[in-house]
Amino acid sequence: MQRIVVIGGGGAGTGAATNAKQFDRSLEVTLITEFEDIAYSPCGIPYVFGRDIKKFDGLFLQPLEFYREEMGINLKTETVVESVDIDKGAVYTTEGEEYPFDKLILCTGWEYEVPNLENVDLDGVIFIKNIRRAMEIDSQLDNVKKAVVWQAKPLGVELIEALPKRDIETHLVDSGSWLMSEFSDADMMEPLQDHLVDDLGVKMHFGTDLTGFSGENGKLASVQTSDGSIDADMAFLVAPMKPSTKLAKSIGIKTGSTGAIVVNNHMETNVENVYAAGACVETMHGLLNIPVNLIQGTYAYTQGRMAGVNSAGGDESYSPVYVPWALGSKVQVGGALISETLAKATGMPYIVGKAKGITAARYHPSVEPMHVKLLANPESQELIGGQLAGGEGVKERADFLAFAIRKGTTLMELATMENVYSPPIGALVEPISAAAKNALANI
Amino acid sequence: MQRIVVIGGGGAGTGAATNAKQFDRSLEVTLITEFEDIAYSPCGIPYVFGRDIKKFDGLFLQPLEFYREEMGINLKTETVVESVDIDKGAVYTTEGEEYPFDKLILCTGWEYEVPNLENVDLDGVIFIKNIRRAMEIDSQLDNVKKAVVWQAKPLGVELIEALPKRDIETHLVDSGSWLMSEFSDADMMEPLQDHLVDDLGVKMHFGTDLTGFSGENGKLASVQTSDGSIDADMAFLVAPMKPSTKLAKSIGIKTGSTGAIVVNNHMETNVENVYAAGACVETMHGLLNIPVNLIQGTYAYTQGRMAGVNSAGGDESYSPVYVPWALGSKVQVGGALISETLAKATGMPYIVGKAKGITAARYHPSVEPMHVKLLANPESQELIGGQLAGGEGVKERADFLAFAIRKGTTLMELATMENVYSPPIGALVEPISAAAKNALANI
Repeated sequence: MQRIVVIGGGGAGTGAATNAKQFDRSLEVTLITEFEDIAYSPCGIPYVFGRDIKKFDGLFLQPLEFYREEMGINLKTETVVESVDIDKGAVYTTEGEEYPFDKLILCTGWEYEVPNLENVDLDGVIFIKNIRRAMEIDSQLDNVKKAVVWQAKPLGVELIEALPKRDIETHLVDSGSWLMSEFSDADMMEPLQDHLVDDLGVKMHFGTDLTGFSGENGKLASVQTSDGSIDADMAFLVAPMKPSTKLAKSIGIKTGSTGAIVVNNHMETNVENVYAAGACVETMHGLLNIPVNLIQGTYAYTQGRMAGVNSAGGDESYSPVYVPWALGSKVQVGGALISETLAKATGMPYIVGKAKGITAARYHPSVEPMHVKLLANPESQELIGGQLAGGEGVKERADFLAFAIRKGTTLMELATMENVYSPPIGALVEPISAAAKNALANI
Repeated sequence: MQRIVVIGGGGAGTGAATNAKQFDRSLEVTLITEFEDIAYSPCGIPYVFGRDIKKFDGLFLQPLEFYREEMGINLKTETVVESVDIDKGAVYTTEGEEYPFDKLILCTGWEYEVPNLENVDLDGVIFIKNIRRAMEIDSQLDNVKKAVVWQAKPLGVELIEALPKRDIETHLVDSGSWLMSEFSDADMMEPLQDHLVDDLGVKMHFGTDLTGFSGENGKLASVQTSDGSIDADMAFLVAPMKPSTKLAKSIGIKTGSTGAIVVNNHMETNVENVYAAGACVETMHGLLNIPVNLIQGTYAYTQGRMAGVNSAGGDESYSPVYVPWALGSKVQVGGALISETLAKATGMPYIVGKAKGITAARYHPSVEPMHVKLLANPESQELIGGQLAGGEGVKERADFLAFAIRKGTTLMELATMENVYSPPIGALVEPISAAAKNALANI
């Protein structure tokens, strides 16, 4: 009987174990995780904090018994892997248990790079990752008056949207000049930024470095920044994230320029019979043909599924990525691939088109704004990226743009795209098409 | 000075006149319409009836003075064209006025085929078209207790969704077996049908023919059907629509198999210097390579714009169509191109995939269902059509599917499409991708 061992119980690990077992029920599949739980949605945590979601229970896909009894997975929680013996084909835990395998799937995920700052270990300095810890924090939030969120990365933006809904005075500290400035453009983030400041009262400290923490009796009292001190009961640090590759490296698995594990399009590592998937691997960028390291749950799950299926004898191959993204509720932003910020940073030539469109007939009460910016290659006029800001329909348009880039779509094809016109749900002119026309007019 | 005359003031005529003028302000552009108004959205009429939109005013894009004064268009309302002298290059009105032209653009639209039924001219038997007439009807709706809508075409479906909101007992009479059965599939219309019946109380009379009307003192009292009589104060007849081509035929302009005017991809007719656009022309179907006649406003406006620009000296070309469509508010349905109904009717081979997905994380309160059905060519596995039913995001996905068909997309490309995962706005698995996987698994 073929034995598969999966290390890690996040999106990738759960996807790997369940899909391997579904592919071939006769396999012996073991999943080992250091945590208490598997198969939950960490992405939902900010929405429970903000009370959009009432309870943490909903974040769990299935109880552990489901995976053990219904799926027949040998599930080992709160179990830490200490070492792997590749020649022998076995995994060893800190408790001295041995798990032999024919195929091994590494889904070890990511970890925070804890900043080297004074008092970072104070009670009240928070790194959001594990759901049990998030539940404890949630129960404390009713007593929090002021909070600081460090870094306007996606999780940071979700947190500053959530915390004001608990009547917490919320401060954002970020060394950039706008939200998600590593990959987004200032003009396209403006609607969300205005919403956060004007409607939710978030205090933005841009161009500001985090320098330290002060406490009283071991508890956080204030956050120090390059622009002064901010009183705070809690500080959420959305620190840089790095792939967890210690175990992989210990058995000679190759990592790449991003620091993550190198896999081929079947999720196979350089070591025979060892697969890897999720936030610990690097993935090929569809346009630049360079590897990138992605931490989003949708990639983790899809790659995990593929590693599971392939390790079980299947033959699925993973495609390069075009990275659609979106976030927000009342005001949403999103996009795919290259922004002006990224094009400038990499010296990539581009032409740009913009449109301030709408999502329904201008006279219908459901109408919301939909701003679109498109970037294209100046020679081929093929789409290389886009950004969106609006009140709804951002996720679907981000998916559309990612797909259009993958399919090699010209501005003229977008300018002449057909669109639904129906007063409550679609405007006469699709904003993506209008932005493409604008880009063509700018040439 | 080059003179352009546009006949018709709907979406196509307005698009033609304004875009010709925008392309070259020195042109003399005349727009002649038999009606009082131009540039309004007839598509909005059912939504005013249903009070989603409070007033008819909003349906007008701009007042007539805007087109006359700001745009400099020579606008002739309530003016009927009697004849055209092609050799002389002039249009003559019933009032005996002459309008010389260098280029003529026919945007004569469509008209109802009034059914040959007894008492069809009774007061209370309504054909929705002109906005002034719709305003009169709207003012009468408060006194209407029972209404019949004939034919579950898109306008008919919009009407049966609107009228119950005015506390009108609403009956649908249709000879088919489900909503829009000419081109849609029963299973995909079910969620909307259930919503109309269960939530809005619409009474459906499917498989039922309209046979006549009875009145009292010249006013409608009941509607006769093959399945008995229905008491009604008002009957809305969504009768078959045919292109208005009388004027075109009088000057030797060729019509095609659909009965509509034949134009090339520059919107030129067979008669030199005469263009046509909108519901009076036929358009090439992207997949079947046969001409179709489209009455939707989005095609009218786009084709009108193109006819205007080209008549003014531009060079834009129109692409074959893949016809995304959608309607509904709380429950939405839509799609693009080939349904199972159409595939069976035309003997086209197909494979099918279905998914019952969701629009957000399953635990987020914003989550709505999203059912997807995809059809593909069995040999190439390329997408040939799709249908959608859900609570939001139908329009954007219909646009996506139409674009994917145009770009020659395989099921595997859809199965491996990337998607945004963000709890309030996007699920872990995109329903389109799930339906493509289902189709591949069915092979």
